[in-house]
Amino acid sequence: MHERYLQQAVDLAVENVRSGQGGPYGALIVRDGQVIAASGNRVTQQVDPTAHAEILAIRAACKKLNDFQLTDCILYASCEPCPMCLGAIYWSRITAVYFACSRFDAAAANFDDSFIYDEFSKAPAERSLAMRQLKLNNAQQPFDVWTAQISKVAY
Amino acid sequence: MHERYLQQAVDLAVENVRSGQGGPYGALIVRDGQVIAASGNRVTQQVDPTAHAEILAIRAACKKLNDFQLTDCILYASCEPCPMCLGAIYWSRITAVYFACSRFDAAAANFDDSFIYDEFSKAPAERSLAMRQLKLNNAQQPFDVWTAQISKVAY
Repeated sequence: MHERYLQQAVDLAVENVRSGQGGPYGALIVRDGQVIAASGNRVTQQVDPTAHAEILAIRAACKKLNDFQLTDCILYASCEPCPMCLGAIYWSRITAVYFACSRFDAAAANFDDSFIYDEFSKAPAERSLAMRQLKLNNAQQPFDVWTAQISKVAY
Repeated sequence: MHERYLQQAVDLAVENVRSGQGGPYGALIVRDGQVIAASGNRVTQQVDPTAHAEILAIRAACKKLNDFQLTDCILYASCEPCPMCLGAIYWSRITAVYFACSRFDAAAANFDDSFIYDEFSKAPAERSLAMRQLKLNNAQQPFDVWTAQISKVAY
């Protein structure tokens, strides 16, 4: 059963390239045996580096279910989700992920997934991206205001 | 100078909570001393778990510049970007990131950033999220088609 949905994600990825819509990736979100959302990669078409198949499928599923959490949903991805998408999967509370290719297959096709995973495992000072924490007097104020706010939607 | 932009990101985060628009986060993208895009967190308002301040600022900046890469841009974030946003920062080719609070400050306010970072550093089998690679006969086909495709926009 999982293989069947995963096959759909791979077929979607192939079709996504053939139709010129974007990169070689596809993702499906399924709940209770029903496909809630599906998408290919649309980075170049939407001029949006976050428009990975998984991100778009998550956003579409949330819109369809009118819920910012996808508890009880399963994600099928043609390739191992990159760090951005894996982070989104955690925030969405998706329960399980099945994937076909690995980050190393993606690297062989010149995609940066594996490189970015490697960056994550380095100490900030050793990364190619310069990241620096600066001290501000009221840095904590957003969290203080949030904690004190009574009428808020927690997430 | 960096402190001044970072202060704007923190002020944006405070205003984002006070106006009821979302969580206590704000982000600014600056190029050549000009603010290209800015956003607060909109997860609950947009019913979208990927609508973090950084993601929305990146998407807005790309739209404004009509480019899916933000080379020469700097991101200022009220808090250390979460793994999803850090991944997006890498894909966008942003050059540098300055932030005020850390993932531990976010954790103290009941946000999962630190938890998700910890998950990334675990072996897949030890994570709270079930992830499994399944073998499909044509798993590599999306990458094969991509590599063979002549008229494609690489990214």
